[in-house]
Amino acid sequence: MRLPAVVCLLFAVSLSAAANEPPIALVIHGGAGTISREALTPERESAIRADLDRALDAGHAVLASGGSALDAVSAAVVVLEDSPHFNAGKGAVFNAEGINELDAAIMDGSRQAAGSVAGVHRVRNPVRLARAVMEHSPHVMLIGEGAEQFGQMHGIEMVDPAYFRTEERWQQLEAARAREAAQANVAADAYFGTVGAVALDRQGRLAAATSTGGMTNKRWGRVGDAPIIGAGTWADAGCAVSATGWGEYFIRLNVAHDICARFSYRGESLDRAAESVILDRLPELGGDGGVIAMDGQGRIAMPFNTAGMYRGWINTDGSRGTAIFAAE
Amino acid sequence: MRLPAVVCLLFAVSLSAAANEPPIALVIHGGAGTISREALTPERESAIRADLDRALDAGHAVLASGGSALDAVSAAVVVLEDSPHFNAGKGAVFNAEGINELDAAIMDGSRQAAGSVAGVHRVRNPVRLARAVMEHSPHVMLIGEGAEQFGQMHGIEMVDPAYFRTEERWQQLEAARAREAAQANVAADAYFGTVGAVALDRQGRLAAATSTGGMTNKRWGRVGDAPIIGAGTWADAGCAVSATGWGEYFIRLNVAHDICARFSYRGESLDRAAESVILDRLPELGGDGGVIAMDGQGRIAMPFNTAGMYRGWINTDGSRGTAIFAAE
Repeated sequence: MRLPAVVCLLFAVSLSAAANEPPIALVIHGGAGTISREALTPERESAIRADLDRALDAGHAVLASGGSALDAVSAAVVVLEDSPHFNAGKGAVFNAEGINELDAAIMDGSRQAAGSVAGVHRVRNPVRLARAVMEHSPHVMLIGEGAEQFGQMHGIEMVDPAYFRTEERWQQLEAARAREAAQANVAADAYFGTVGAVALDRQGRLAAATSTGGMTNKRWGRVGDAPIIGAGTWADAGCAVSATGWGEYFIRLNVAHDICARFSYRGESLDRAAESVILDRLPELGGDGGVIAMDGQGRIAMPFNTAGMYRGWINTDGSRGTAIFAAE
Repeated sequence: MRLPAVVCLLFAVSLSAAANEPPIALVIHGGAGTISREALTPERESAIRADLDRALDAGHAVLASGGSALDAVSAAVVVLEDSPHFNAGKGAVFNAEGINELDAAIMDGSRQAAGSVAGVHRVRNPVRLARAVMEHSPHVMLIGEGAEQFGQMHGIEMVDPAYFRTEERWQQLEAARAREAAQANVAADAYFGTVGAVALDRQGRLAAATSTGGMTNKRWGRVGDAPIIGAGTWADAGCAVSATGWGEYFIRLNVAHDICARFSYRGESLDRAAESVILDRLPELGGDGGVIAMDGQGRIAMPFNTAGMYRGWINTDGSRGTAIFAAE
């Protein structure tokens, strides 16, 4: 069923290559963690891959028609936020009070402009609010009710907090509460499912965006790395990154910017820069997770040190794919 | 009056140099901005310098007795938070609702551990709460009421919000409201007065801390760079930075970590790395402000691109000073 679309895409790509158009590329993630092959039924796997494909299609359509990397990452992330399968927007995890508390960020590498929100409860698509903060305020980061007030002034869609609820996430909260009551370890997967996208457009501009519900059973207004510019989200003129994983470690290592600094200042390849941070530095400190990264030529790196990371990509040559486990 | 102390200090330093003890150093700031020589009466200047000296004394006493860089930066910042002359703790600026809304961060370079809080209203010393987040929670960043709840659980001193009020800051809010009503430009100094400290201890550990009330008349839960690890505050094994300035630009440039990345990855001197970011990149983007930075040998850099920056330092050789304007 997917074949005709792929054939059309390859045809379109040959046309565009023939016309010598500058390259475009897109990479997305839906979270890294210990994804168990047993828990992932064929139906669920197929639904997740379909959503990753829809996000790729949405973002790539923007790029193919000459749109901006910023619009492309926003379009891709909105699809993932609207899907109940990922920990962002609908289907986000619950905090300790049984509320969905959402964080997101977006960054335009060509202007090093950024927008970010944390601790919002009623914003259907937090990435759109982060974009509005970047475009329509003098600020980069807004939090809590103030961020929502700003969103309402700028036409950002608000929903009843019940919109975000899925039965599966509620069960995860109940399980986390039971583990806590039994003084068992917090599940390493409590944060699993953050979404993100990185894109290169025909003008050579890079952009990155990340959106998350954070950690199941989180307390005290905890903020992870997703909305922290430099930690979970970063874009500059030559390099862009969106991260997913145990956010505290990503903040402590300034992961997204550190990958780009190694790439730009040390002259490491994108692969090597991303792998140094994710496969060496991160586990040394005790953290886990992964990133998607792209350089100004549209080269993609997707390292992770967990069993799996939901991911999808469309390369500059038009080749595309989705993957979940390491050996794919 | 200050001479005997200086003489004693030099004597102590010669003793310690004779004992071949590893170097210690401390640098602090009380904010960068367009400090006008006219507005700064001799009485006010002398009070500010006295507070800077008290902060240096508090931090250096910790280091000289073999204490940690972390304890030293915390001790120095607490003095500046308690002083009404700086925009942190008592004397913080007011937000648009007439409330003091405080942010702070602290980072231990030896472990790359960090703690950060944003949007708190009742915490006398936000740097102490940031430290508690680092030491007593699995998290790095907590915001709003949740952060205050966490603080209360851990014995952090809470005060009535009226504690933070000074008449001068209230007048600044009134002036900002009047300018806004007249649709005049927001004063570039709306953010002036953030405080911070960076230290090196005898174990060779670096630490950094920053605390602020943010921008006068800020809205919508705006968060600046101070509590953003990598932007306003950073420490690793070989480099540490605390920033002050127009926070949005410091976030967009990931200033604190970028200085350390240039130092570590490019092999630039600390001076050059800090100056590249503060004197070149920051004004290119349209921002202003300054940083204090230190490397693992205790070398200090203090560049700023504004008319002045309140600052003080004690070098590894025991020489010390305070300064306000550029030509000092």
